[in-house]
Amino acid sequence: MQKRGYFITFEGIDGCGKTTQLENVQKYLEENGIECVTTREPGSLKLGSQIREILLHYDGEVANNCEMFLFLADRAQHVETFIKPMLERGITVLCDRHTDSTIAYQGYGRNGNIKMLQDLNSIAVNGLVPDLTLLFDVSVEIAHERAGKNLDRLELAGKEFFERTRHGYLELAKNNPNRIKLINAEKSKESVYNDVKSLIIDLTGKG
Amino acid sequence: MQKRGYFITFEGIDGCGKTTQLENVQKYLEENGIECVTTREPGSLKLGSQIREILLHYDGEVANNCEMFLFLADRAQHVETFIKPMLERGITVLCDRHTDSTIAYQGYGRNGNIKMLQDLNSIAVNGLVPDLTLLFDVSVEIAHERAGKNLDRLELAGKEFFERTRHGYLELAKNNPNRIKLINAEKSKESVYNDVKSLIIDLTGKG
Repeated sequence: MQKRGYFITFEGIDGCGKTTQLENVQKYLEENGIECVTTREPGSLKLGSQIREILLHYDGEVANNCEMFLFLADRAQHVETFIKPMLERGITVLCDRHTDSTIAYQGYGRNGNIKMLQDLNSIAVNGLVPDLTLLFDVSVEIAHERAGKNLDRLELAGKEFFERTRHGYLELAKNNPNRIKLINAEKSKESVYNDVKSLIIDLTGKG
Repeated sequence: MQKRGYFITFEGIDGCGKTTQLENVQKYLEENGIECVTTREPGSLKLGSQIREILLHYDGEVANNCEMFLFLADRAQHVETFIKPMLERGITVLCDRHTDSTIAYQGYGRNGNIKMLQDLNSIAVNGLVPDLTLLFDVSVEIAHERAGKNLDRLELAGKEFFERTRHGYLELAKNNPNRIKLINAEKSKESVYNDVKSLIIDLTGKG
């Protein structure tokens, strides 16, 4: 039977540089003979992208619990119809945002009910936990500068929101030290990538 | 301060005749000076109709938990941005399907986790419970005959599914006798309406 693929998630506030590093990891794994796919939440599947459209471009008020359930719907679909089948085929999955985003953004950022969000997430993922989560930590100011002017719905929420979200991520890292690896993402891309690569080698044994 | 409106839900399997009776009740209330609006789940708001589109016309597999969360998202949005504001303005809300549909269809019909669905629903409705639920009970055969050939996604699920769903509704009625009123909907429309009207008079005191 084929070895199960690794499930690796990339987390951090918008502008932290995680997407660039995800692409680096993809390249690295392929060069080292580890088959992998990249994906993201929300909105990697057709169904997810429809949900993403609703979340980003709805012209009325979106109730907080509605948004939460839409993210959960996207996650459940993504996990069941994409991530789990890939892992079972031995393919490593690199995922841009996953459950930690929900806890950090909706829980800490929006002052949501963290215990409830964790319970709901565990229903949505149905037993799936990342083998490794890379958390790219930067100050809110640097993140905003890097993210530029892409002010869609979520990015209009303001600085304090992102401060709470960043704090949430750091709490999650503190509470899950084996799974979540904290990376100082204020350094140069090359330096960040060196840290990332060494964590990937620890996990996969390749390098 | 204005008196809060009544929240009345109309439940039963597809083809039970609830929508016709909802229209009768709307007319009756208006004639008796009770301001009311009609609505439905899923899909009464723009956001809800986008979700409804996803559910009814998605061309791939929709994971069960994904569908469940989409229904919950629609419900949360509907409750917070439509039903509660209407009730607070003193307007009675007549709703075609609400939480009991989820428990009956996804819980009993699909053999889902009923306790979990109830917990999730109570998050979505955030304290809102109908003042009266009219449950229109008919045999699956009669319901199918009445529903005609409208075989969209949900209606392709087969007879056993609807038998379980009907049974689920009856269980809900047994467990919530004060809120849920069981109506024999195999009788003539006129006769069913007489039963409905008398329950509406009991609730509103008008008639």
